[in-house]
Amino acid sequence: MSLIAWPVPAPDLHADVHPALAEAARAASAAYGVIRRSHGRTALAEEVAMGADGTPTMRVDAAVEDAIAESAQRSGVNLLSEEAGFLDHGSALTLVVDPVDGSANAASGVPLSCFAGALVRDASPSEALTVWLDTGRTWWARTGHPTPYRTSGRTSLDGATVNLLRPRRSNRDAWLRVLDRAGRLRVLGTTCLETVLVAEGSVDAFADAGSDTLRICDLAAAIVTVPAAGGAVIDARGRPLEFDPDLTRRWSGVAAATPQLADDLAATILG
Amino acid sequence: MSLIAWPVPAPDLHADVHPALAEAARAASAAYGVIRRSHGRTALAEEVAMGADGTPTMRVDAAVEDAIAESAQRSGVNLLSEEAGFLDHGSALTLVVDPVDGSANAASGVPLSCFAGALVRDASPSEALTVWLDTGRTWWARTGHPTPYRTSGRTSLDGATVNLLRPRRSNRDAWLRVLDRAGRLRVLGTTCLETVLVAEGSVDAFADAGSDTLRICDLAAAIVTVPAAGGAVIDARGRPLEFDPDLTRRWSGVAAATPQLADDLAATILG
Repeated sequence: MSLIAWPVPAPDLHADVHPALAEAARAASAAYGVIRRSHGRTALAEEVAMGADGTPTMRVDAAVEDAIAESAQRSGVNLLSEEAGFLDHGSALTLVVDPVDGSANAASGVPLSCFAGALVRDASPSEALTVWLDTGRTWWARTGHPTPYRTSGRTSLDGATVNLLRPRRSNRDAWLRVLDRAGRLRVLGTTCLETVLVAEGSVDAFADAGSDTLRICDLAAAIVTVPAAGGAVIDARGRPLEFDPDLTRRWSGVAAATPQLADDLAATILG
Repeated sequence: MSLIAWPVPAPDLHADVHPALAEAARAASAAYGVIRRSHGRTALAEEVAMGADGTPTMRVDAAVEDAIAESAQRSGVNLLSEEAGFLDHGSALTLVVDPVDGSANAASGVPLSCFAGALVRDASPSEALTVWLDTGRTWWARTGHPTPYRTSGRTSLDGATVNLLRPRRSNRDAWLRVLDRAGRLRVLGTTCLETVLVAEGSVDAFADAGSDTLRICDLAAAIVTVPAAGGAVIDARGRPLEFDPDLTRRWSGVAAATPQLADDLAATILG
């Protein structure tokens, strides 16, 4: 059994994070630490169920989501999550979460995985929290409130630093079109961390280059955090990003330092 | 001025690390913390000199290397480093270091950058240390001694998880040949972290897919750490990896879970 040697620190949470979101994040981090201490890489990656989003659920995802579901029930808020789907606890508030963003990283020991969640009322997100599970670092933003994050402000794809979702057969041409114009490519395998790096101004943009892979859970935190820092989050094909309990819906999400850069990326992806 | 918000923790060092190597790592980490607290992203990335390796030196590289050079002088060992070249202090021991691996990450706030160094006597490395500067995590290995790290053991590129140096125009075809056979791609932009992840069994391989970008400083720690964990480090074109003070020499380094996987990758890169 090949255990991952590194401990999982508790998330470093701002005091004003909504209690339901804060508790979900603490539950996720604790569960992630427990499952990593008790299960090796192969066991973490084992597919133990089929998720509500139509993709297989790894053991590491299931363990963390179970802890979040219990936390949401204690908090009395509804939950929309990749594997479990929509859990109705009769609340006006819904937590939209990705329990473990970067599951393949998490299961293999690549220390780039996140919990990310948004608090949503009437299909509108009021705040979002991203926790880099492997370090405990957090990013928190409220809709309509100033944040300490500022994007780079870049407006053109030419020479930009761009993080991409890994290419699939279906979108290789679009992927290479982006690569041809970008100045520096990264592929970290964790959308939620890559989008907060856009908010912080560390990279200019992140994109799914047209493979329609991302679910609303993958984008929920970015939809709050990136615009609060001056950037934009759109779908490359122009579809509205909606907090819809139907988790089979997919988007080619683009998070960029400015609306202009987001549009430039989308146009390049569409070709 | 856009400061990077995160602190730089001290490296978590094994008690048996050679004092000269341990001191260099502590000096690097401390200097990295100081320069990040006082300089924003643009200033960190500013090119302040031309390095001995023939590439421009960013301010963040220069600050960290200066601290390492002072440390090596105090320790009485020679130093071979990317920017300064070879500093002869009349010792039989030479520290071969990459002061900041992943300089572009370090300067922009992508939290993936490393100090890496090997202790070399008569062109043979005796031990190596890699420090993930952003978290303080360390990997240490001694030539001929057992380590806690074990590679994944994978022997074929088909379906393997492969980290690649970002593509250049000159090696795009080779890059895409690797991508076609690999199961999962990552591009983290930090060779030293990516190669210790090979040693740990978190990814199957790392490669410069034929762009001849890597210097001996980039590969020094991997040359000790990956084989100690059961893997192999080779040049894709079969050139010997030598501890040579001539820093204009470049390699297309391949670090893989097994010698078979390294050969499969090299053959795919050569096409």
